[in-house]
Amino acid sequence: MTSKASAVPSTSAVQAIQWQDGVLRLLDQRVLPLETRFIDCTTAEATAAAIHDMVVRGAPAIGIAAAFGLVVAVRANAASFDAAEAVLAASRPTAINLHWALQRMRGVWARTPTAERLEAEAIAIFNEDLAQNLRMAALGADLIAPGSRVLTHCNTGALATGGHGTALGVIRTAWAQGKLAQVYNTETRPWLQGARLTAWELMQEGIPGKLIADGAAAHLMSVEKIDWVIVGADRITANGDTANKIGTHALAVIARHFGAKFMVVAPSGTFDLSLASGDRIPIEERTAKELTEFRGQSVAPLGMQAFNPVFDVTPAALIDAIVCERGVIVQPTTAAVAAVLR
Amino acid sequence: MTSKASAVPSTSAVQAIQWQDGVLRLLDQRVLPLETRFIDCTTAEATAAAIHDMVVRGAPAIGIAAAFGLVVAVRANAASFDAAEAVLAASRPTAINLHWALQRMRGVWARTPTAERLEAEAIAIFNEDLAQNLRMAALGADLIAPGSRVLTHCNTGALATGGHGTALGVIRTAWAQGKLAQVYNTETRPWLQGARLTAWELMQEGIPGKLIADGAAAHLMSVEKIDWVIVGADRITANGDTANKIGTHALAVIARHFGAKFMVVAPSGTFDLSLASGDRIPIEERTAKELTEFRGQSVAPLGMQAFNPVFDVTPAALIDAIVCERGVIVQPTTAAVAAVLR
Repeated sequence: MTSKASAVPSTSAVQAIQWQDGVLRLLDQRVLPLETRFIDCTTAEATAAAIHDMVVRGAPAIGIAAAFGLVVAVRANAASFDAAEAVLAASRPTAINLHWALQRMRGVWARTPTAERLEAEAIAIFNEDLAQNLRMAALGADLIAPGSRVLTHCNTGALATGGHGTALGVIRTAWAQGKLAQVYNTETRPWLQGARLTAWELMQEGIPGKLIADGAAAHLMSVEKIDWVIVGADRITANGDTANKIGTHALAVIARHFGAKFMVVAPSGTFDLSLASGDRIPIEERTAKELTEFRGQSVAPLGMQAFNPVFDVTPAALIDAIVCERGVIVQPTTAAVAAVLR
Repeated sequence: MTSKASAVPSTSAVQAIQWQDGVLRLLDQRVLPLETRFIDCTTAEATAAAIHDMVVRGAPAIGIAAAFGLVVAVRANAASFDAAEAVLAASRPTAINLHWALQRMRGVWARTPTAERLEAEAIAIFNEDLAQNLRMAALGADLIAPGSRVLTHCNTGALATGGHGTALGVIRTAWAQGKLAQVYNTETRPWLQGARLTAWELMQEGIPGKLIADGAAAHLMSVEKIDWVIVGADRITANGDTANKIGTHALAVIARHFGAKFMVVAPSGTFDLSLASGDRIPIEERTAKELTEFRGQSVAPLGMQAFNPVFDVTPAALIDAIVCERGVIVQPTTAAVAAVLR
């Protein structure tokens, strides 16, 4: 059996997950932007290792990779579904999209236990994510006036999703529509996803991006009109409060001060309507070493303490629009979120 | 002739400039915080090289080092004053304190051309800077209530001055007075002076500091009450607008949003009353490499553009107090600045 690459349409120069002739090919995000290297996964174990080792990152991208990991396992040995599911499920235990994708694949397998049916479902997961991104990008770009200057944070692009991206997908589409005069992106400390990955995606697309230090956003807005700050989300509560990469809340405060508008772009699966507001979201704190070391070299004195939260929560009151594939929530409130989500 | 080390009093655990037995000993700030290494300067050329190579940094510290560089030259050869002055003046051509210190030394030399008189003047420059810092520290600490939590940015400590520091001097004194519950300091991208130097000074003093990413300030203030943000200044205009390290303006906007007060600490020599307001201050932009590389390794894709301003200008309206050795300017305006400065 041969799967055509065209089953998974390309919408951007960045194609981080590729499925061709029964091989899952993943762009190795660990060596970006200095090298463009792909890793071929022909077993569930290899796919799980690629997820664990962060060859592929970004919640939607991990879910898609895991789904194809089941396909490669079952194509080799139809009896291996359960074992493959277990090894993939253990690869990043906290990634919610990973488990969602594996459960969806198990449901299909329970009804039709064939490699062909599994492959069709993995491609569907991939295509649905991409379709959601394209829908959000169109809705978000509609909010942007021609000649706009925008600022984004972290990496929310084709690398983190099935393609196109969420916040960076809006920027990609607005750029294609000729609306953007300039794109700025933060370096995004401590992991530098902006400097490493968003910069790489912008250059791949030929979008005129400029990198700034995270602390330079206020100065930027004081010397140049920034129309929109556009970010992704890790979790959005019922009232529109938005957890996202550390630094997002600061950008929202600064944007409001300078009159820049603030857009969150995330699929409806990102909403957690069981939480009334953002103060219920637990914020993970990580090791001080992410600030005190750089690539294994100490930069701060040994023993220096740090406060290193991974995410922050931007209050809905600082958000002008949340864009999801079901529609745009303007000036989010509990009622406005419910009107679009339910 | 022997100069006693006690001629230059120590007020902190950090003694970055030492003058002992006719030798200028400089703490090598390039290898901090991983190594504590001193470089002995026994000629004007060696002193100039140490300034040029940033063994010593911080405008007041550079001025003091240059003054002692003249002393070591004249002690070896009384005819070498002019040549020594020329080599020192060329070491960092744009450092205003360097030229101020050399001019003051020349004035003394013109009246009394002896090594002893020059040495006394260098020690006076050193002691006056330290005295200004101690005066500012006392005035600033008076503004801080017991139990306060403070956040500082960049390095404004003993390493950058004759000792004690400006903003960090206020923190040092407030800590000694038992007023501080917690000190936070930003890492200060792109040069990491906070992670490298301020962290080191805090640890030397046993002050309980915690390092944060520059982008984490808003999250910090959303989860914990921060009473004061305390920063230094590179230039202050007649109306109180303050140029300081990039990221300062962002912290001032965030502080105002969360109700934290904002203090600038700088000696009166930092004021440039010839400029009415901060929009007249030229902001230096530096190479993209400071963001796209780390210690010579690329982190961003080759060719990525960046916007890398070194300083930003915080409007006086966002500043609650400017502390200089002549007094405290509360809610700075042109009139309030003039009342303290003139």
